[in-house]
Amino acid sequence: MTNTPSDPPRGQVTCNVTISIDGFLAGPHQSLDDPMGQGAEPLGRWMFEQPEVNQRELEHVTAAGAYVMGRNMFSPGRGPWDESWRGWWGEEPPYHAPVFVLTHVPRDPLKLEGTTFTFVTEGIESALNQAFTAADGGDVAIAGGASTVNQYLAAGLIDELWLHVAPFTLGAGERLFDGVGPLDLDPLEARSTELVTHARYRVRR
Amino acid sequence: MTNTPSDPPRGQVTCNVTISIDGFLAGPHQSLDDPMGQGAEPLGRWMFEQPEVNQRELEHVTAAGAYVMGRNMFSPGRGPWDESWRGWWGEEPPYHAPVFVLTHVPRDPLKLEGTTFTFVTEGIESALNQAFTAADGGDVAIAGGASTVNQYLAAGLIDELWLHVAPFTLGAGERLFDGVGPLDLDPLEARSTELVTHARYRVRR
Repeated sequence: MTNTPSDPPRGQVTCNVTISIDGFLAGPHQSLDDPMGQGAEPLGRWMFEQPEVNQRELEHVTAAGAYVMGRNMFSPGRGPWDESWRGWWGEEPPYHAPVFVLTHVPRDPLKLEGTTFTFVTEGIESALNQAFTAADGGDVAIAGGASTVNQYLAAGLIDELWLHVAPFTLGAGERLFDGVGPLDLDPLEARSTELVTHARYRVRR
Repeated sequence: MTNTPSDPPRGQVTCNVTISIDGFLAGPHQSLDDPMGQGAEPLGRWMFEQPEVNQRELEHVTAAGAYVMGRNMFSPGRGPWDESWRGWWGEEPPYHAPVFVLTHVPRDPLKLEGTTFTFVTEGIESALNQAFTAADGGDVAIAGGASTVNQYLAAGLIDELWLHVAPFTLGAGERLFDGVGPLDLDPLEARSTELVTHARYRVRR
């Protein structure tokens, strides 16, 4: 991405992902009843059970001015939209900023409490550009899932990657870095708490 | 492993492994000319280029009272021994304690400067027991490679795992945790330096 003099100032592209110690972002056999996939529910324990000791990292997860996510993170299934589906999160999603959802099927924007979901059919660069505009100088976070994060990593579009490594093996599922190709990063900082190891990286261009 | 009252005191079973950020301990196509496998040479940069800033972790790598390694880590190839092969390290190996090498082919012990390589054909538990005796109350380190570490992890025989994560992707090779099955760990500490992220874990029994 290059800026021209007339472009407004842009924030960073950040990505927070929680993975198992063997590198999986989601388990196998994802379904409506088990959206994270088999065995993957405990990946989020550090957020839900110990928000205080992981407060700094949690604040970073929610600090973005806009979010981009894959369709699979917004809804189950493929093909035509079931317009009654309003996301996994009920009427008050945890995103307090605009969210851009990658999809192959157009859909009108969906306004919920604190956020609007905009559906983007023009690909990952377009979604990122729309998110930058919406963020108005703030950071844009690539929210997931695995395929979306890996596409942005492969395209060299992520500036800062914050890995939250849950201390157990999953053994199968969707792997971070799968098919991403050669990537060099600079370690910025790391620390561990009882349920997670946090490791922050800058991705080299 | 259970201790009976007559057993001598035993140290911990430790394991220090350097992996790429996508989880590979070695690259593909390992050979005599490229013993770490394609692209994997930079995994060790943190040790060789910045020993001072990583001193504490390096001291842990060399602190064991005895080591266990797979045959592949001691020599290239399989089958009958070429007795002229004396390890990858020349006459002064970096192991200043007894080393037990897992193999299917018997060979007499090999005494070099500062260490003796003993070849064990009776499997991983026997090698560990012999290492414990040799360590005389000190820790035993599982030195590698991937297959050996994964076997000991799968058998629940490692107490403490220290991951040294190099900040680049390898994309292919031998993966840590491959086939190990369900494993739970407790994060103990983590920190990063310019070339590596160190993360220390206790493996739960």
